[in-house]
Amino acid sequence: MKIVREKERGNVIVGQSGGPTAVINSSLAGVYKTARDRGAKKVYGMLHGIQGLLQERVVDLSEHIRSDLDIDLLKRTPSSYLGSCRYKLPEIEGNAEVYDKIFAILDKLEIEFFFYIGGNDSMDTIKKLSDYSQINGSKIKFMGVPKTIDNDLAVTDHTPGFGSAAKYIASITKEIIRDGLVYDQQNVTIIEIMGRNAGWLTGAAALATGEDCEGPDMLFLPEITFDVDSFMKKVAELHKVKKSVVVAVSEGVKVADGRYVCELFDNIDFVDAFGHKQLTGTARYLAQKISSEVGCKTRAIEFNSLQRCASHIVGRVDITEAFNVGGAAVKAAFEGESGKMIILKRVSDDPYMCVTDIYDVHMIANVEKKVPREWINEAGDYVTEDYIDYVRPLIQAELTPMMVDGLPRHLRLDDTSYSKK
Amino acid sequence: MKIVREKERGNVIVGQSGGPTAVINSSLAGVYKTARDRGAKKVYGMLHGIQGLLQERVVDLSEHIRSDLDIDLLKRTPSSYLGSCRYKLPEIEGNAEVYDKIFAILDKLEIEFFFYIGGNDSMDTIKKLSDYSQINGSKIKFMGVPKTIDNDLAVTDHTPGFGSAAKYIASITKEIIRDGLVYDQQNVTIIEIMGRNAGWLTGAAALATGEDCEGPDMLFLPEITFDVDSFMKKVAELHKVKKSVVVAVSEGVKVADGRYVCELFDNIDFVDAFGHKQLTGTARYLAQKISSEVGCKTRAIEFNSLQRCASHIVGRVDITEAFNVGGAAVKAAFEGESGKMIILKRVSDDPYMCVTDIYDVHMIANVEKKVPREWINEAGDYVTEDYIDYVRPLIQAELTPMMVDGLPRHLRLDDTSYSKK
Repeated sequence: MKIVREKERGNVIVGQSGGPTAVINSSLAGVYKTARDRGAKKVYGMLHGIQGLLQERVVDLSEHIRSDLDIDLLKRTPSSYLGSCRYKLPEIEGNAEVYDKIFAILDKLEIEFFFYIGGNDSMDTIKKLSDYSQINGSKIKFMGVPKTIDNDLAVTDHTPGFGSAAKYIASITKEIIRDGLVYDQQNVTIIEIMGRNAGWLTGAAALATGEDCEGPDMLFLPEITFDVDSFMKKVAELHKVKKSVVVAVSEGVKVADGRYVCELFDNIDFVDAFGHKQLTGTARYLAQKISSEVGCKTRAIEFNSLQRCASHIVGRVDITEAFNVGGAAVKAAFEGESGKMIILKRVSDDPYMCVTDIYDVHMIANVEKKVPREWINEAGDYVTEDYIDYVRPLIQAELTPMMVDGLPRHLRLDDTSYSKK
Repeated sequence: MKIVREKERGNVIVGQSGGPTAVINSSLAGVYKTARDRGAKKVYGMLHGIQGLLQERVVDLSEHIRSDLDIDLLKRTPSSYLGSCRYKLPEIEGNAEVYDKIFAILDKLEIEFFFYIGGNDSMDTIKKLSDYSQINGSKIKFMGVPKTIDNDLAVTDHTPGFGSAAKYIASITKEIIRDGLVYDQQNVTIIEIMGRNAGWLTGAAALATGEDCEGPDMLFLPEITFDVDSFMKKVAELHKVKKSVVVAVSEGVKVADGRYVCELFDNIDFVDAFGHKQLTGTARYLAQKISSEVGCKTRAIEFNSLQRCASHIVGRVDITEAFNVGGAAVKAAFEGESGKMIILKRVSDDPYMCVTDIYDVHMIANVEKKVPREWINEAGDYVTEDYIDYVRPLIQAELTPMMVDGLPRHLRLDDTSYSKK
């Protein structure tokens, strides 16, 4: 059905914030295409989110996304096409100058609709900007578009980006489990998976289990206090019945005294603007402990940044939903909504059906949704069937990369703000 | 053209040895299908190579690979389907009992043709077994089938397995370079790539460079002595012109005194049966050095085992060649050849054409082919266009995984020798 442009709309601006996902640019494509199709005059992109906006680093997206082919390439492009930031707006009270500056820039660009694609930290930005606009009688509409591989956003059934990360994790976990069987000797592989406070992604390793794969042996989520001694005993028990043991741990698992497992031996090098520590080394710590105490071959494998940028193996359900939440945000804003985030509502598990809805961003910003205790087994070392039933539909179907000269092709933003060789 | 089975052949046995590749099972499929099509009575598989054969751990492959669908699944299955080993046969002189045992087992199974899929260590096995058979008048034919992601086999233009590893490395390097641009801040990513003595795989990161990607900034291959101070200076120079720096290093880079870079701070935990040290930590060492001395954000990313098992993104050129070397080995053995390895001969660069040939395994076993000095730039920090022209054809085209319920499906060898939950 051809979309009828009922009337010309004002200008739109869109930004990306926080860590990327493999499908965050599909949401950008959804915002861009829907805004353009529904009559937006200009669609601007802020470079590096609100941080770049404060420096007036803005591009006119129609000069960069020039064709439907570009839109499809954009969907398949990893990382945040516009660049991102981890910039936290100060409290409104006592900091009017920052907000005045932002609104002056928006007014100069004649912006009427503001979209921010991000996780719970980014929704804090939407919350504050829409609150400020209400206080000051601005007519700009502010809408949040959900994204995060961590799946820790409140209210929404799940978050775009999570499904593709889960699909990637399950796929390579299958490969690594198979690889662990190659030699006829005892070995332990510790897989380290992203997830500071929520174990959604670590749980996804369980999806590897199926007719052709025995799956990982244990999963440790940050929702459960990690006990090193009990872990060592469990590995020893497993080795009595099988040679190759594969364990997945969240980077954020903590021992009883509150320290991260990776802090038991490693240096924590960085703290970001939101006060988050950079966590790494959990798998290495555990692998070295097994290696020195048990003596068997160990491997520590960090699934690293590829969890958020492996666009070469995305899920079609996920990338479509990512596009849809972008489009739904535009539709809602054009209909007058503000201070809301688009959420996904699961209508049916089997067959899987999901629709978008809108929800007050105040109930979402800064809230973390963790894996419910009842979706983790009693021993605290695996997820339950309910968890699997919840995640399985989200990793379905594929969107193949566009391969050029042997490699996936991406859309590149040619802008001098970007560093070049 | 339908293959005419001219006559019934004797029994065949095939084994896999050394580290796997993403396409090693395509070579197994090539041996199995060609042997069966050309009239082999039985096609046995040895579990865990020669080490398993010595324990008489053998399967009848036709009981496990039951259909053409199975053959196509086998091609797409990561790790070594039959299991592998790093078992080095002793010198023939003074160790007749080992050889007598092997030949007694082969005779018991009425083996006439013996195929071993592996790298230069594995070709040592073919060399010794064929030498022994010559000395003792055995009529068994021994043929080597090349595989290794390292591409370090002599004589052959390249080695099956290398192309898919190169494709995987180039694809995810593109994603990681893009990911490094996400925040507007100085950062350095150090990618650690497999390659103990030869830098073929590290060079493949350069393939990421193209219209949509600036490529990595520097590549350090083990062929060139690594200088830590000069490296630090180069990173500082790069930061003057760009924010996000991405560097790929071989796990095997060494400093002037002969120590591996990873030995500058890490423990080396394991030494395998061939006396190889397990190397890891090069990227981490360099990242931590930059982080502490320069203070900018750094990431160390190990491309790890996935380089040899990422069957979710294999190259069709590579997987077809892997199948073909298996088939060519069977054809050659059935025609009376022994003590040889199948090699690939490049007939033309552009358009790329490659055929198989056979070569005396004595000239290949235990020899390592390194990247020629003239394919590395003068500064020793990048590969040349000649290198790119050599590798680019090898990463072409795709063989998509068979996706079942959202994940790549593999063929699993259901054998009680394999550990199970």
